[in-house]
Amino acid sequence: MSTKFPDKAADPSAPAAIPPRERIVSSAADLFRKFGIRGIGVDAIAEAAQTNKMTLYRKFGSKDELLCATLRQVTQRAGAIWDELEREFSGDAAAQLKRWVEFQVDRLEQEPGGCDLANAAVELRDSDHPAHAVVQEFKNSQRNRLAAVCEAAGSSNPELLADTLSLLLEGARVSVQTSGPEGSSRRFKESCEATIAAFSSR
Amino acid sequence: MSTKFPDKAADPSAPAAIPPRERIVSSAADLFRKFGIRGIGVDAIAEAAQTNKMTLYRKFGSKDELLCATLRQVTQRAGAIWDELEREFSGDAAAQLKRWVEFQVDRLEQEPGGCDLANAAVELRDSDHPAHAVVQEFKNSQRNRLAAVCEAAGSSNPELLADTLSLLLEGARVSVQTSGPEGSSRRFKESCEATIAAFSSR
Repeated sequence: MSTKFPDKAADPSAPAAIPPRERIVSSAADLFRKFGIRGIGVDAIAEAAQTNKMTLYRKFGSKDELLCATLRQVTQRAGAIWDELEREFSGDAAAQLKRWVEFQVDRLEQEPGGCDLANAAVELRDSDHPAHAVVQEFKNSQRNRLAAVCEAAGSSNPELLADTLSLLLEGARVSVQTSGPEGSSRRFKESCEATIAAFSSR
Repeated sequence: MSTKFPDKAADPSAPAAIPPRERIVSSAADLFRKFGIRGIGVDAIAEAAQTNKMTLYRKFGSKDELLCATLRQVTQRAGAIWDELEREFSGDAAAQLKRWVEFQVDRLEQEPGGCDLANAAVELRDSDHPAHAVVQEFKNSQRNRLAAVCEAAGSSNPELLADTLSLLLEGARVSVQTSGPEGSSRRFKESCEATIAAFSSR
């Protein structure tokens, strides 16, 4: 192999240097995002990951399980963001909340395709699909972390504030897809600020 | 034909009494909702509509155009709802707004599959797909009708209130799909009430 692909073997950033499992998850996430879950088959994923269908099935068992793996990867990144907010504004929950809103505004611009997990839930009509459990657990955990920050920030009703902000975010990420960047999502920051102000302790 | 299908010809509620075009749109809307746009083919739609693929293509030209027709049907129903609100609470915009929220709460329970138009926008990755224009026009018109009611109700910032309520609604209809009925959508009514109160004239 090393004589056949000398450059790839020498360059650790080359696709072949990344383990097949990670290459498959990364390629699948990318293709699902671009073409939709039903819009892409395992053959195309295997090809994009520079592997074959047999390896894909050996590592994941099924396309459904591969989809769950791509969604779990997204949830891990989201968890890291909360940890970063906590580190950056240690002990200042109001600043964490403010930064959370700004972070989401950036994402609305940079990721007009919306939330991979919400999109998967919308696209998968079958409620028994294993991805639904991954999505639901993730959305609940995000909402609960947000509620904890709202409570620490001294909101008058942290639970309702967290639910309201969660709905605004879910709505904004879908609204970019339904109405484009000039739709209601353009006011997401103002909407959040007005909501946070309405729920501030008086 | 009347001797071949005597019962259908005699009963105006039988599928054959409904014109093929309407039967196809109705069957397509139902199947897209159940299985997703990519999850269903024109053969299955033609069969469910008790017609054939040739008739379907003659009436709609393509599956894309048929999808647009199903979405336009939804938009007509939505338009009728605003007219009804206006008739029911003529001259009382605050009551119209309150009833709009209650109406959406009912829909969250009765239509856990969410908004057909938002779902289509999420499922169709290709931004050039003609359905996107139908969805965007519809979402803008809904938002503008809501803004007009917010303004008539004397809100302190009717534009921002309409955008915030639009995001809450879009978020709630997706949240039912991502988090189930016990997620943040459960608080949709309270979220709207708190938002409307925050934007009331002071």
